[in-house]
Amino acid sequence: MIHNFNAGPSILPRQVFEQASEAVIDFNETGLSILEIGHRTPLFKPVLAEARALVKELMQLDDDHEVLFLHGGATTQFFQVPMNLLNEEETAAYLDCGVWGSKPIKEAPLFGKVKVVASSKDKDYSYIPKNFDIPSNAVYFHYTSNNTIEGTQMHDIPSTGVPLVADMSSDILSRAMDFNRFDLIYAGAQKNIGAAGVTMVVVNRNILGRVKRQLPSMMDYRKHIEAESMLNTPPVFSIYVCMLTLRWLKEQGGVAAIEKINHRKAALLYETLDRLPVFRTKVDKSDRSKMNVVFVIDNPDLEKAFTELCNNEGMVGVKGHRSVGGFRVSLYNALPLSSVQALAELMQHFATKHG
Amino acid sequence: MIHNFNAGPSILPRQVFEQASEAVIDFNETGLSILEIGHRTPLFKPVLAEARALVKELMQLDDDHEVLFLHGGATTQFFQVPMNLLNEEETAAYLDCGVWGSKPIKEAPLFGKVKVVASSKDKDYSYIPKNFDIPSNAVYFHYTSNNTIEGTQMHDIPSTGVPLVADMSSDILSRAMDFNRFDLIYAGAQKNIGAAGVTMVVVNRNILGRVKRQLPSMMDYRKHIEAESMLNTPPVFSIYVCMLTLRWLKEQGGVAAIEKINHRKAALLYETLDRLPVFRTKVDKSDRSKMNVVFVIDNPDLEKAFTELCNNEGMVGVKGHRSVGGFRVSLYNALPLSSVQALAELMQHFATKHG
Repeated sequence: MIHNFNAGPSILPRQVFEQASEAVIDFNETGLSILEIGHRTPLFKPVLAEARALVKELMQLDDDHEVLFLHGGATTQFFQVPMNLLNEEETAAYLDCGVWGSKPIKEAPLFGKVKVVASSKDKDYSYIPKNFDIPSNAVYFHYTSNNTIEGTQMHDIPSTGVPLVADMSSDILSRAMDFNRFDLIYAGAQKNIGAAGVTMVVVNRNILGRVKRQLPSMMDYRKHIEAESMLNTPPVFSIYVCMLTLRWLKEQGGVAAIEKINHRKAALLYETLDRLPVFRTKVDKSDRSKMNVVFVIDNPDLEKAFTELCNNEGMVGVKGHRSVGGFRVSLYNALPLSSVQALAELMQHFATKHG
Repeated sequence: MIHNFNAGPSILPRQVFEQASEAVIDFNETGLSILEIGHRTPLFKPVLAEARALVKELMQLDDDHEVLFLHGGATTQFFQVPMNLLNEEETAAYLDCGVWGSKPIKEAPLFGKVKVVASSKDKDYSYIPKNFDIPSNAVYFHYTSNNTIEGTQMHDIPSTGVPLVADMSSDILSRAMDFNRFDLIYAGAQKNIGAAGVTMVVVNRNILGRVKRQLPSMMDYRKHIEAESMLNTPPVFSIYVCMLTLRWLKEQGGVAAIEKINHRKAALLYETLDRLPVFRTKVDKSDRSKMNVVFVIDNPDLEKAFTELCNNEGMVGVKGHRSVGGFRVSLYNALPLSSVQALAELMQHFATKHG
């Protein structure tokens, strides 16, 4: 029995693997593989249309919000966002709340002025900064809703008074929110949406068209909206896997239903961590992520022993990010509660033996 | 029996579909899906390394030429190439030889000066311009080696005296060439390399680092070289399918061996077209593509009848590109000779009946 706690690409629902595997051989009983069908054919167009419609439905988006499936990963959005929204003489506000949150701050100055409103770098990003001021003339405020490496999460939508942009790569669709309060949301698909190789962008069309610079076609959100995410050959298979995963999420009862399960998974794991002194988490209690639980074992011998135990027991992907070490357990939508229960039991046994 | 003549995404070898389908359920007997493994794990790294090594081997690239697997499709390369190579006050030379060849010409002026050295637009791109002059101060010359929509192909590598850049999306790895004569080659994977969602770039590292502008990280070839195509989460599954397809090509005997089969396929189809007056091709004989055979039936009733016949006989994807109409038959590497034989017979029957 394998329990997959990978941080991304990460576990997807079993039925998605089965349907995707079948489609690589025979897509919808056409006798053709999903890999060999034209993207502008009546075979693929309904897949993309259903994926976009499911996002609109699951996120309860209003008519101003467009759903795009783009190439390039969230890292491309780090520059595509300011390229589309920020004129040279204008200022964008950014929150520096993690290794990933710091990366877009390095890309934005190529396009305009950047004001970092707050940073938690002073304490290794172990908390989410609060009570920061956002300049009223900022053309947008950008933050990372969940910090995969550090295991922190912004639990409420900040009140900003300026257009709101969020990198939700690692907690998109994991909890109910008023997504219409955001003007732009982007997320690499490879955690809660589907397979690596596609990035979802939700954008309020009213914030576009302000910048004076000429944009390369592939970087222009408006051209992608006009072309309905089909400006060039899209990542066909990755979008198909997203569609299957979104269907599964709807079958589970949607975002509010999955949030309840996600809450139980995180509660069980944090309760276990807090109870067993051999494990320690550096993250401020109020800012703990429900998607990525990050912790350490201070004794190097025990750290090694626990790593080996996890390997032997089929617990995959519990190693912390290469930049910080320690342990990281990811609890994305598709991870069953039973995997968290198995891990919690293992931790309990380990603590009893070595406590 | 289905014969898949799709223009891209297009047919891949049967064994690739089978292996890819299996890997979506159980990758290399790990019990994990290829869709749920981390890209920096010992599971995926060898896949990317093998894909890159196979490209180097099959194209017989020297040590100056780097192989990258990037996001974004060839359409992203339309602007990424000038962004990396062309300073504002400098000139790049372009050949305008097709609908796809004309697109990068619209993107390059965002970065510098563009000189179109020749165009075949005057005759609906039905031929490849010859005897054009390339300014000696051009920082590069760009052309499209095969024009998918119009069915023309540049059969020889042009002598330019300046760095050579080619979009080889639709004929990469289909014929033996001295690939080291190119300074930059790019190709969307979804024809001869693998599945949609990844783009191969081969670049001579010596032409990089000249431009004065600051580049967004994801657009900087040098950063991708340094990160070995792992600057962010790569399109894992698409790269895996490329690796399988490249393995298959090597098993076939490599590029020189597949070229012989490709030649036979194209020769059979053009011979059939030339023999049967009901079919007509507008392309200059010397510039005919061996990858995409484009033709028309002048009588609209017969055009409709042949379309229906193809549909009934399992001939998929013979419809011409939406911008030009008529018929297009794509003969990419994975299309077996038997499919071309079946089509040629069908054309013969059709001509006998309606001739």
